[in-house]
Amino acid sequence: MQMWFSEYHTVNVKLDVRIEEQLFSGKSEYQKIDVFKSYEFGKMAALDGEIVFSDADEFIYDEMVTHVPMAVHPNAKKILIIGGGDGGVAKELIKYPFVEKIDVVETDKMFVDVCRKFFPEVACGLEDPRISMYYDDGLRFLRGKNDEYDLIINDSTDPLGHTEGLFTKEFYGSCYKALREDGIMVYQHGSPFYDEDEAECRKMHRKVYKSFPISRVYQAHIPTCPSGYWLFGFASKKYHPLNDLDAERWDALGMKTWYYTTNLHRGAFMLPKYVEDLLEEEETR
Amino acid sequence: MQMWFSEYHTVNVKLDVRIEEQLFSGKSEYQKIDVFKSYEFGKMAALDGEIVFSDADEFIYDEMVTHVPMAVHPNAKKILIIGGGDGGVAKELIKYPFVEKIDVVETDKMFVDVCRKFFPEVACGLEDPRISMYYDDGLRFLRGKNDEYDLIINDSTDPLGHTEGLFTKEFYGSCYKALREDGIMVYQHGSPFYDEDEAECRKMHRKVYKSFPISRVYQAHIPTCPSGYWLFGFASKKYHPLNDLDAERWDALGMKTWYYTTNLHRGAFMLPKYVEDLLEEEETR
Repeated sequence: MQMWFSEYHTVNVKLDVRIEEQLFSGKSEYQKIDVFKSYEFGKMAALDGEIVFSDADEFIYDEMVTHVPMAVHPNAKKILIIGGGDGGVAKELIKYPFVEKIDVVETDKMFVDVCRKFFPEVACGLEDPRISMYYDDGLRFLRGKNDEYDLIINDSTDPLGHTEGLFTKEFYGSCYKALREDGIMVYQHGSPFYDEDEAECRKMHRKVYKSFPISRVYQAHIPTCPSGYWLFGFASKKYHPLNDLDAERWDALGMKTWYYTTNLHRGAFMLPKYVEDLLEEEETR
Repeated sequence: MQMWFSEYHTVNVKLDVRIEEQLFSGKSEYQKIDVFKSYEFGKMAALDGEIVFSDADEFIYDEMVTHVPMAVHPNAKKILIIGGGDGGVAKELIKYPFVEKIDVVETDKMFVDVCRKFFPEVACGLEDPRISMYYDDGLRFLRGKNDEYDLIINDSTDPLGHTEGLFTKEFYGSCYKALREDGIMVYQHGSPFYDEDEAECRKMHRKVYKSFPISRVYQAHIPTCPSGYWLFGFASKKYHPLNDLDAERWDALGMKTWYYTTNLHRGAFMLPKYVEDLLEEEETR
């Protein structure tokens, strides 16, 4: 049998992954949820037909959104994850003994239930006693929050669809308010390579750059992402992602990782010229 | 019409690129050569069914194999390109006014002719008066060469097929001999992500690590490569790719690039943990 899952990176490019079997297919109030078992990537979760993570490469994404800010902030105790119903980011965060409270806000309860069933080794992140789950819209949850979090990780999938509100100026403003005076926000910045993605990437940087005093972009290589190349945003009220990196302190934690190191942390902010150029263009608009 | 070119990254993963038209198909003495016009990547050249470069991303590869060693070697005058019949590496090298002589050794004349016809903006690199073209096997060409080149760039496609000899211990030994006492060799190191590629990558590092006093690996994001992630090797008799990087001198050349910067140069050597680990394992075998 030949069964292929096609992920369209643009209308003219797709990544095809050979599937062993489909483990789940369902429709929640918000989206279509599918789980596949693939030969190359192991189990994969797809939302509305797009891979959101796979056994083989979730570690890259989850480590990069978690350890980069955690190696910079000297004392992140209270953290908010927006989206993140799969538990992957929580799984990394609970490794820090000094973290006291993690709020996870996820719109789609069915997605969480599906991840708990099919990805227990990822979703286990949600079982820690420091975790509080809220099934709510991220933007609504943030309203009224003031000076509360040391770190906000926006783990939402896409600037389109039901999570669109999490990519607006209002949203970034709400995050700013919800953060303490030395808070950091980390978010998905998309892929800059294909033209249609580049436009989104530019828009996002323009909005965040105006909302935070420090706004830098960093990169990782994620095979299932469009063109295999993914950017993250680091927006911060006080700490600079490189000048305030405390590599010694992080290394002393002795944390086991597969992608992140404090050396890679530095390299992740050294971007290709075409990416530097497009970000700078938005900064000087 | 829907015409898709499928590039198998493993037997279970492929990248599909929508094609506008096929511009050329032929069989040389060595390989099948195809040229396509695609919607997303512009024109693409394929050898034996594998994309070797495209209009949209050749700049990443060509800049990374050229400018990384050129920003380290203080005075590279005589250079050898093995493979490189498309002219892309030569195109970058001829931008350096102090380069005096560039030998290009390519087995397949038909490939060069096809590139000259369909990719004149890349193949133009071969028209510079400092270029000498040799239609020969790389390994045979190297025999008898002693203490001659400042830099050797091994631009060959694959450790399999008719270029297999360019990935052997004998080949690396011949390169060592052909280099001057402070020479550098740069080569394709493959992609480390998929298991079958990882094995090749390990083998290669083991061989080169034993042949040169300095042997470091660096990375780039190339969308049409397997998993979008590609490694290069930097093997050197004297200069270290980071300690001997002369960023000021390179920046003063005022060269126009789209991917390379001396800042990115540093970041390119900061590798993910899983890549660091597999290289270290081979070094201590």
